[in-house]
Amino acid sequence: MTILRQPTRAGVRDAAAKLNGVVPPSPLFTHEIKGVPVAFKAESLQPVGAFKLRGAWHRLTAIEPKMRDRGVVAFSSGNHAQGVAWAAKRLGMPAVIVMPADAPVTKREATLALGAEIVSYDRATESREKIAAHLAGARGATLVPSFDDAWVIEGQGSAGVEASAQMEAMGLGAPTHAVVPCGGGGLAAGIALALPDATITPVEPEGWDDMRRSLEAGWIEPVGDNPPKTACDALMTREVSALTFEVLARRGCVGVAVSEAAIAEAQRWAARYLRLVVEPGGAVALAAVLTGQVSVEPGMLVVLSGGNVDPEAYARVLAGEAVEAPAFPALSRAGQ
Amino acid sequence: MTILRQPTRAGVRDAAAKLNGVVPPSPLFTHEIKGVPVAFKAESLQPVGAFKLRGAWHRLTAIEPKMRDRGVVAFSSGNHAQGVAWAAKRLGMPAVIVMPADAPVTKREATLALGAEIVSYDRATESREKIAAHLAGARGATLVPSFDDAWVIEGQGSAGVEASAQMEAMGLGAPTHAVVPCGGGGLAAGIALALPDATITPVEPEGWDDMRRSLEAGWIEPVGDNPPKTACDALMTREVSALTFEVLARRGCVGVAVSEAAIAEAQRWAARYLRLVVEPGGAVALAAVLTGQVSVEPGMLVVLSGGNVDPEAYARVLAGEAVEAPAFPALSRAGQ
Repeated sequence: MTILRQPTRAGVRDAAAKLNGVVPPSPLFTHEIKGVPVAFKAESLQPVGAFKLRGAWHRLTAIEPKMRDRGVVAFSSGNHAQGVAWAAKRLGMPAVIVMPADAPVTKREATLALGAEIVSYDRATESREKIAAHLAGARGATLVPSFDDAWVIEGQGSAGVEASAQMEAMGLGAPTHAVVPCGGGGLAAGIALALPDATITPVEPEGWDDMRRSLEAGWIEPVGDNPPKTACDALMTREVSALTFEVLARRGCVGVAVSEAAIAEAQRWAARYLRLVVEPGGAVALAAVLTGQVSVEPGMLVVLSGGNVDPEAYARVLAGEAVEAPAFPALSRAGQ
Repeated sequence: MTILRQPTRAGVRDAAAKLNGVVPPSPLFTHEIKGVPVAFKAESLQPVGAFKLRGAWHRLTAIEPKMRDRGVVAFSSGNHAQGVAWAAKRLGMPAVIVMPADAPVTKREATLALGAEIVSYDRATESREKIAAHLAGARGATLVPSFDDAWVIEGQGSAGVEASAQMEAMGLGAPTHAVVPCGGGGLAAGIALALPDATITPVEPEGWDDMRRSLEAGWIEPVGDNPPKTACDALMTREVSALTFEVLARRGCVGVAVSEAAIAEAQRWAARYLRLVVEPGGAVALAAVLTGQVSVEPGMLVVLSGGNVDPEAYARVLAGEAVEAPAFPALSRAGQ
């Protein structure tokens, strides 16, 4: 079902135009770090708590009218599920989300509240890819990948178009350097296309930094066999896609990996200074800036990509307790 | 130093016009409660984490040019201090904040970071009112009350002007009912002036509901001698002012008091569904809606007035632990 089309800057602009009036621009805040005003794009404040509705909207609105009634299928236990469900609901299309049986109740509830149907699978014995492909085939529905798709990448890139306009309106000028959380790379690649003159730094959790290693190697390297635990459920992607990798590689991007402790500290910083609830995966770019792994500079844009936290885990982070990361899913490729 | 002038709707509009371009409108979000879209005005996302910069800006810009160099004095251990310091810094005016010696380090740091001078006093043996009046007299500085002042009330009301425009732009129409946190009543009175056709419900913590009792009685009744502990440090006002009371009384407003448990639940709800860090005092209006003490209706506006939390106390609230409220200051009139 993968459509062989490269994402383009024109596509990103088209996505931004399509989103205009559908959702208001997510807020952009500035806060000084080491005396330099840094811009924060709060995608955590989107209606579904993450940027994912951007790619979903651009993708679903590109489905041919005669195919729309058959709906869409996605596999995800988190933010992508809600993005697809949100877009499908607004377009009056049926949506089926393939979700592990042990997904957090909060995420199941949020997806159901958006009107989607959930098909559960057992992580240990079943493949969600196969289930999703089977469902899509049987229903004639369109499969919506979480990042390996030109429309999805272009849609996510609309965040960069918006942020650039907001920064210019605030007198900060267009972004010169965007620091972006990276799982499969859809958001980072989309923003790279949106901002052709900016440095783009994709940021991942340590041990899940396959984009960083891939960019260094010059070819795609998957996550190793025994990746460490991470609190960043939204960034646990086993392998990036050729589409996202090539956009970032062609730009000569250099990735950064941040520690779990730095991520927790970034979540605390966001709560205290920005009064924002940011999920671990949404805080990695901020973590890279706060640790000094990325140097602060004028024109810097930091993307806070999501705010869907597990309340108990978040309370522990704010209390400053040792970060207890959940186990990563054992058998299936973890999504966004 | 109290200026004998009543706040007016024209003054509120003037304040809104003065703030336009100085700070961007705080974000307004909608979320369905019981199937009805409710608008949330996130004053917690202001640069100082609360609405207080509005009144401070309107007041400080009304000071005669020849008096500006002498600066301003305010007494507050919290949000008002930061609002005054923020406005003074932007206007290049010196600011002195009279703050209890045992004020939280985070609030002292935030006030110092805004360039203000802090004068400490001992809650047990000294009167901050006297210290502030003495400082103002000795320096020829202008005293900026936290709510008992026409300019301050009008400035806070600009939040209502903004929210109304935002709701109309989103197709929700002008607010029909505004639910507003209330300490001294500056924000509630200001918003009442901003929205002459809306129902205004001021909300206070139980035991500190002197505005509610005053509106019921028809005259100002102070908080009783032994008020209960409350987590709402921003709303611990011992007595409302004639200026704020009269605006709300003339409108026939009815107040609501909410429990500490309901306030904690509202903070958790805001973190989960709005991804916002809201302080206890900033969450009381939301608490009144979630408990059903205020019925949800179309056109409803709920103000989230501040987001400056004590990190440890906030972590305990999110963890759902029993709410441990701090002791209220024993001797001085608690401010905002």
